[in-house]
Amino acid sequence: MSRLHAIYHLQASAADIDARARALALEQSIEMPLEAVASEHVRRDIVATVESINEIAPGRFAVVLGIATATTGGEIGQTMNMLFGNCSLQDDVELVDVGLPDDFLVGFAGPRFGLEGIRECVGGAGRALTMTALKPQGLSAADLGRLCGVFAGAGIDIVKDDHGIANQAYAPFAARVAACQQAVRRANAQTGGRSVYAPSLSGGPRQVREQLRIVREEGVGMVLACPMLMGLAHFQEMVGHDLEVPVLAHPALAGAARIHPPLLLGRLFRLLGADATIFPNYGGRFSYSREACEALAHAARAPWRDFRATAPVPAGGMNVGRVPEMLEVYGRDVILLIGGALLSAGSALAARSREFADSVRTLSQRSEVT
Amino acid sequence: MSRLHAIYHLQASAADIDARARALALEQSIEMPLEAVASEHVRRDIVATVESINEIAPGRFAVVLGIATATTGGEIGQTMNMLFGNCSLQDDVELVDVGLPDDFLVGFAGPRFGLEGIRECVGGAGRALTMTALKPQGLSAADLGRLCGVFAGAGIDIVKDDHGIANQAYAPFAARVAACQQAVRRANAQTGGRSVYAPSLSGGPRQVREQLRIVREEGVGMVLACPMLMGLAHFQEMVGHDLEVPVLAHPALAGAARIHPPLLLGRLFRLLGADATIFPNYGGRFSYSREACEALAHAARAPWRDFRATAPVPAGGMNVGRVPEMLEVYGRDVILLIGGALLSAGSALAARSREFADSVRTLSQRSEVT
Repeated sequence: MSRLHAIYHLQASAADIDARARALALEQSIEMPLEAVASEHVRRDIVATVESINEIAPGRFAVVLGIATATTGGEIGQTMNMLFGNCSLQDDVELVDVGLPDDFLVGFAGPRFGLEGIRECVGGAGRALTMTALKPQGLSAADLGRLCGVFAGAGIDIVKDDHGIANQAYAPFAARVAACQQAVRRANAQTGGRSVYAPSLSGGPRQVREQLRIVREEGVGMVLACPMLMGLAHFQEMVGHDLEVPVLAHPALAGAARIHPPLLLGRLFRLLGADATIFPNYGGRFSYSREACEALAHAARAPWRDFRATAPVPAGGMNVGRVPEMLEVYGRDVILLIGGALLSAGSALAARSREFADSVRTLSQRSEVT
Repeated sequence: MSRLHAIYHLQASAADIDARARALALEQSIEMPLEAVASEHVRRDIVATVESINEIAPGRFAVVLGIATATTGGEIGQTMNMLFGNCSLQDDVELVDVGLPDDFLVGFAGPRFGLEGIRECVGGAGRALTMTALKPQGLSAADLGRLCGVFAGAGIDIVKDDHGIANQAYAPFAARVAACQQAVRRANAQTGGRSVYAPSLSGGPRQVREQLRIVREEGVGMVLACPMLMGLAHFQEMVGHDLEVPVLAHPALAGAARIHPPLLLGRLFRLLGADATIFPNYGGRFSYSREACEALAHAARAPWRDFRATAPVPAGGMNVGRVPEMLEVYGRDVILLIGGALLSAGSALAARSREFADSVRTLSQRSEVT
């Protein structure tokens, strides 16, 4: 009987931590008093085990629980339920990491394209890639299309919808995707480039299915989705059954203060098939540390079974001036995403975009970048 | 142009709060520098407004943002994205509440059955209802069926799957639902009662559709779902399109420390059509305060447009001894959920269950309970 090894950080006194850890083990498995369990099988194979308790700071403990693989049913929604379902409601608990056994992992395929597949899509072999975002929401489909054409014409590899661009009246999905895809196609025809447009998917399964129909019909080469907004099981199912192009994962609603970002945005999103994972880079508008970002990138692309590498996409208030530093930190196996800082260039938009695209192309192929 | 009025609590110094609030307004709307926005329409109608800032404690502020209704596209996933998408990643922000304008609300139907509809299903007019949970996971479908029969035979109104019971090998959905539904039917035939079994739905859209097919085929009268695990848009679509029986909402993965429970589990789950909302009652295994629980119950059932009342279901480590107190706090418009404490009775399971069912029936019809 294999087990997932889930690592939690718990606030408790030294006197209470044993009892608190045992209570967490019950909460995250059978959710009832152990005394009331008659079945020997349940006691032995189903109840979560407390594998270890280590004090990591005064009043703060790392607790490892062994959660029976059988309880997950091999399904990601139920797996999240076992890992953090009820205890997400308890404010003394954080989910830090989880060790996933082989018999669990065989049910997952990971990214279908991954970093290398995305490189092939855009013709970016051996170098870092560039990405930008269409914004602000509120623009019409035609205006977004024009902007998309400027970015693609400047040689930016991936032009994605801002994740706030959904299916609003001012730029409905169908009209917007048609306009942006046409703009990218035209720009590529002029430059000989291979820029790709990635529209943002949103809504319930029916709406997403309809959006994917439009994606196929328009010949769109990539999509953006928010797994925590969609629901992880919906995301996984879409990737496995309905999607023929790479998918970029966006961290909206990921509430990462309670589930550590390297686990959720790095490892779990990779497991579910995200080809690229966008995350708030350190030194931007968000509170992630450099260590957390590096751990996230590591989780996304370090060798892991036969899963393809997910492209890390540091983002959130970046600018062209930070390109050399980001390449130094993340190497060339990365997609750099700059949005607002390009748009701030006003009439120099195309020039600033070209500067971004060219600098990443040039710098990331130097030998000292790894 | 109407707006959603979103209330956040922010940690900041008095010197910084104005800038922090403006930054949050940009983050949760156009996500780019205001200077870079040329469109007058976007500046006026799309950018979120800072409506008010109030210090509520030293270094802690209540900030009200006006988020343009048009940006939500009338869809719940995108609405959550606008309310808490990016800023869920910033650990100085909590989402406390939101005022929803009429032109937003017209797109939502709320509960199809609600508290009164559930009462009709189980024949519980004018009184508080009872609920218990089948546990522990790890039992076979046949064992869960037997347990279900004991609870139904004792007169408990609703017997739900524990939310950890999904589609595991030891009790697959189809076999379990058949066994439990048959047990309930038999018990009702013997007692003349109208107990209902509510299986837990899990997985992506395809798996949920297949589970709902089984629910229909077996004549099951109610279901349980975890909206945050499913994805809110998936939940809403399922309720609106695929579900013919009442649905109980479970708070798994709701991470309520960052979105206030009365908003998420009370108002938003109601908006999406939850007929009952299960939440951790104060004084149990979770950290909610009595005030938060009362606010949640109020949000679930207070008059709100023409939305049916969602039944509040306080739970999480309750026992029969607390029934009088819970009825005093919540009145008779409530479903009381006791799980593990019944199962702890061992051979007295049926008697303890009957005591629970009978005491709620009797006490909640006294005139002093409102």
